Amino acid sequence: MTQSETTVEVVDFVPGRWGNPADPMHLSDSVIGALTMLGINEPAPAPVDVVVPATRLGADALAALEGTGAAVATDDDTRRSRMRGFSTPDLLKFREGDGTDAPDAVVAPTTQEQVAAVLAVADQHDLSLNPFSGGTSVTGGMMPERERPVLSLDLRRLTGLIDLDEVSQIATFAAGTRLPEAERLLAEHGFELGHFPQSYEGATIGGCAVTRSAGQSSIGYGRFDDMVVGLTVATPVGLAEIGTAPKSAAGPDLRQLILGSEGAFGVVTTVRVHVHPLPAVRRFYGWHFPDFVAGEAAMRTLAQSAVKPTVLRLSDEAETGLNLANPSSAGAASAGPVGGCLMVVGFEGDEADVDCRDVYVTAQLEKLGGTALGTEPGEAWRVGRFRGPYLRDPLLDAGALVETLETVTFWSNLDRLKADVTAAITGALGDQGTPAVVMCHISHVYPTGASLYFTVIAKALENPLEQWAAAKNAANAAIRAAGASITHHHAVGTDHRGTYLEEIGDVQRSALRAVKDALDPNGLLNPGILLP
Amino acid sequence: MTQSETTVEVVDFVPGRWGNPADPMHLSDSVIGALTMLGINEPAPAPVDVVVPATRLGADALAALEGTGAAVATDDDTRRSRMRGFSTPDLLKFREGDGTDAPDAVVAPTTQEQVAAVLAVADQHDLSLNPFSGGTSVTGGMMPERERPVLSLDLRRLTGLIDLDEVSQIATFAAGTRLPEAERLLAEHGFELGHFPQSYEGATIGGCAVTRSAGQSSIGYGRFDDMVVGLTVATPVGLAEIGTAPKSAAGPDLRQLILGSEGAFGVVTTVRVHVHPLPAVRRFYGWHFPDFVAGEAAMRTLAQSAVKPTVLRLSDEAETGLNLANPSSAGAASAGPVGGCLMVVGFEGDEADVDCRDVYVTAQLEKLGGTALGTEPGEAWRVGRFRGPYLRDPLLDAGALVETLETVTFWSNLDRLKADVTAAITGALGDQGTPAVVMCHISHVYPTGASLYFTVIAKALENPLEQWAAAKNAANAAIRAAGASITHHHAVGTDHRGTYLEEIGDVQRSALRAVKDALDPNGLLNPGILLP
Repeated sequence: MTQSETTVEVVDFVPGRWGNPADPMHLSDSVIGALTMLGINEPAPAPVDVVVPATRLGADALAALEGTGAAVATDDDTRRSRMRGFSTPDLLKFREGDGTDAPDAVVAPTTQEQVAAVLAVADQHDLSLNPFSGGTSVTGGMMPERERPVLSLDLRRLTGLIDLDEVSQIATFAAGTRLPEAERLLAEHGFELGHFPQSYEGATIGGCAVTRSAGQSSIGYGRFDDMVVGLTVATPVGLAEIGTAPKSAAGPDLRQLILGSEGAFGVVTTVRVHVHPLPAVRRFYGWHFPDFVAGEAAMRTLAQSAVKPTVLRLSDEAETGLNLANPSSAGAASAGPVGGCLMVVGFEGDEADVDCRDVYVTAQLEKLGGTALGTEPGEAWRVGRFRGPYLRDPLLDAGALVETLETVTFWSNLDRLKADVTAAITGALGDQGTPAVVMCHISHVYPTGASLYFTVIAKALENPLEQWAAAKNAANAAIRAAGASITHHHAVGTDHRGTYLEEIGDVQRSALRAVKDALDPNGLLNPGILLP
Repeated sequence: MTQSETTVEVVDFVPGRWGNPADPMHLSDSVIGALTMLGINEPAPAPVDVVVPATRLGADALAALEGTGAAVATDDDTRRSRMRGFSTPDLLKFREGDGTDAPDAVVAPTTQEQVAAVLAVADQHDLSLNPFSGGTSVTGGMMPERERPVLSLDLRRLTGLIDLDEVSQIATFAAGTRLPEAERLLAEHGFELGHFPQSYEGATIGGCAVTRSAGQSSIGYGRFDDMVVGLTVATPVGLAEIGTAPKSAAGPDLRQLILGSEGAFGVVTTVRVHVHPLPAVRRFYGWHFPDFVAGEAAMRTLAQSAVKPTVLRLSDEAETGLNLANPSSAGAASAGPVGGCLMVVGFEGDEADVDCRDVYVTAQLEKLGGTALGTEPGEAWRVGRFRGPYLRDPLLDAGALVETLETVTFWSNLDRLKADVTAAITGALGDQGTPAVVMCHISHVYPTGASLYFTVIAKALENPLEQWAAAKNAANAAIRAAGASITHHHAVGTDHRGTYLEEIGDVQRSALRAVKDALDPNGLLNPGILLP
C-alpha cells in the first residue's frame, strides 16, 4: 500500500524533452478528443536537429581549466546537453534547432577545492560561469548573458551524503546530489528528506536550495528554504560557511540571502538540511468539494490550524474535470462525483501521530463541506505525482501550446488573483484566435496565503514562442497588478527578471546589487540571471 | 482559569530598573538565605544620581529637526530616559551615576514622513540616529558610537493597528506599538499576536522585528521572524516595502535581511505580522522529569513531531531547585517532587485542536519518563511569566551580581554547550573568588536544535562591571568554541559584536557591510551596532 518514494529513480532527462525517455507518456483518445475541441488537429512540425556554434573558449583558458583537475568538455553533444532548461519556450527553441544558447565549455569539478580553482580561472580569463546540477529550470536559469565565453559549471560530480546527525536530524549533502539519490542514501539509515517537487527525478539538493524549491509535502515538511540549516558557498572572494544554529538572533539570516540567489552570489557546494525518520505510515485520501471556493476555504482552515496533514492539494473545477491530478488517466472520466473539485490530503508519520491528525483533519473537512472519496484518488495522485509534466512533450507533438506558471499571494487576494491571471491568459491567447483552457490548483498553503499553479492549453500557432510570450507577459502584468509575487517556486532566472525587479523596487534592488558586487566583484557568476 | 494575556498592561520602565515600578518584587527570606550561602551579605552601594553631559547638538541642527514636525527634546531627564538598555552592565553603570551614553537629543516623529525628514536632517547635519522604541535591549543596542552627535529616534508615537486582514490573519502595526497594546487592539477583533518575550510589558512590534525576538510560545506561534510577512523600512536612500507574499521563490528573502538588522540598515516603520484568533482554551501543565537529560530528550521528541504544544519549557535541576520558573515564590520549596526538572507544557487553541494535541503530547511525555504534575505549576508559571527579571534589581540591591545570557545550537551539541558555558562562567567567577550558581533552561525548541538560557548569581565584587566582563568573555569564547550562535533572541548590539563577526566570518561580513553601505551610505544609522 505505502510504496516508499525511494523506489523512484534518478532520471537523466534528454535535452529538449521532460522526464524519463525510457518511460514516455502517450495521449489517451479522450485527451486527443479534448484537443480537437480546441481546434488542435495538426501535429507540430518535426523537430530540427540542434546545431551549436563553435566554442569561444581560448586555448589558454582551456589549459588553465584543465589544470584545475576538473573534467572539461567542449564537444557539441556535451554542450548541447547543458543548454537551457525545460520551459515550453526552451523546448520550442530546441524543436526549432536553435543552439545559440549552448555554453562554450562544460566543466565538472569533483571537489570543493576544484570549484574554487575554476572560479579563479574564470576570473583570470574573463569567463562567465553558469552553475548546473539538475538542469530542470523552467525560467531561463541556464541562459546567462553571453558577452564573455560561458562555462557550464556541472556540479553533478559533487555528490553524496557527507554527514548524518541522527540526533539533530540534519543531513549534509554535496550540492550535486540528485533528490532520488539523496532519498536512497538516507533510507539506508532510516531517514527521509521528504522533498518532492514535480522535478524530483532530475533535481538536485543544491538546485532546490538556490531556487527555493517547494515540494508537494510542503505543509508537512516545509519548503526547501525552511529545511536548510546551513550552506557552504564558494564565492569569488572566498568560501563562506553559513548557518550556525537552527535559528538565531545574531543579525540578519544570511542563509536567506543565498537561498534564492540562483548562483548569482556564489556556488553552493554543500547543504545541511533537516531530515526526518522514514514514515511508518503513508495515507493519502481524495476529498470532493462542490466548488473551488468551498475547497479553498477548507484549505485555509487547515493551513491556519495547529494540526495539519503532510500533503494538501486542491484542483479547480477545470483541472478536476480533465483529471489532471492523475496524469495516467488524464482526460478520462473522474472516478468520483461529477463536477466540483478534487482535494488530495496525505498523512505521513508514525501510527500515533497520523491517527491523531487524520481524525482531526477528517472532522474539519466534513464540517467544511467535503465528501470523503477514500484512498483510491489519493493513492492514484501519489503514484503519478511526478508524471504531470511528461504530458507536455506529446501535447507539443500533437500541435498544442502547453505551459504552466505559478504565483503566490495572501488568502484575501487569492480569488482576485486567480480570476485576473486566468482572464489575462485567455484574453491574450483569444486575441490571437486561439481559445485556451486554463486550469489551476493550490498545492502549497501557509497560514497567511497560498500558491496558485496554472496549466494552459491552446492550439499552437506558427510562431508559438511569440504566441506564448504575449500570454506570459499578460499573466506577469496581472500578477504584478494584483500585488502578488511573480513566482512561488519556479524562481526568477531570466524570464521573470523584469517583473521581479518591479516587485522588489529600487531600495531592495540596490541591496541585492551591493551583495552581488561584494561577493562577485567581476560579475563572473550567472550574469543577467536574477539581476541585470 | 484562562485569564487573557491582554490584561497585562504596557509598563513604562524606569531608567535603570527593570519592570513595573508600581509593582516591584522583593526577595523572600528563603532567597536571602540562598544568597548568604554564596557569601552575599552586604548590600550594594546606594545608587548615585546620573548626570548626563551637555548636548552636542548645534542650534542649526536643532532648528532643522524641529522643522520636520517631530517633537525634539534636549533636556537631561528625557535624554537620561533614552540611554542604554537593561543589561546588568547597563544597570550597574546607572547605579554608578555614569551618564556618558546619553543621546544628545530625543526626536519623536509621529508619521513615516517625519521619520524620512529626520533621516534627511541627520544626513545634512552629520548626526547619528539610534532608533528607540521598547528600550529593553540587553546587549548594548542603545549605545551607538558617539563620534557625531547622537539622536535617539523615539518611535513610540508611531503606534496603532493600521490594518487587520482577518481572512489572511495579517495585522499591520505601526512599529512603535507596544506588545500589550497590540494585544489589546487585536482582542477587540477577536485576534491575538501571541508573542510573549519576557520583555513583553515594555517591548514593541518594531523592536521585536529588528532583534529577532522569540516569545515564550515560539513552538506554537513561531519566533517573531517567522510571524513577519512584511515590513516598511525608511532608509537614507528611500522607502522600501518588503514582502509581497507569505513565501516566494522570487530571489533572496529580503525580509530576513531587515529582521535582525537592529536599526543599522533602516528604520522599520510598519510591520505586517501573522495573527491568530484568540484561543478559546488555554491549558498549562507542569511535568516532572528525573533529570535534565531525560527532559531534554522529551523536548526533542516533541520538537521533531508533527503534533506540538503551544508552549514548551524545561528548567534544569538548579533552576528547578531554586524554583525560578515561578518567580513569585522563587527560592520557596517546589510544590512537586523534590529534585529533578520541571517542564511547562502549554496548549492554546480551540477545544478540538487542544484536545487532540493534549492527548498525543501527554502520551508521549508519559512514554518518555515524565510525571504529570497537573495544571498548578503550569498556571503558576503562566501568571508569573514576565516577572523573572523583576528579581534582578532587588538582587543587585542585596549585593549580588546577577545576569542572564543565552545561546542556541543543534541538539547533538546541546549537552556539550551547556557544560562548557557553565564551566566557563563558574571558572571565570571562581577565579575571582566568587563562586557562582549557574542555572539553565530550554525555552525555544526546533526540530534540529534548541536554545539555552543561563541565569548566573554570585557575590558582587567592588567592580562588578569588570567582574562580569570576565565571565561574559569566557562564556562568549565557550559558545564560539562549541560552534553555537552567540545569541538566540537577545540580538547582537554592541556587546556581542566581536563574537558575532567571528561567527559569520569575512565573506558574510563583507556582504553585510555592502548592504549597509548601499542603504546607509553615510553611516547615520546605529554606527557600531551590529557592524563596526
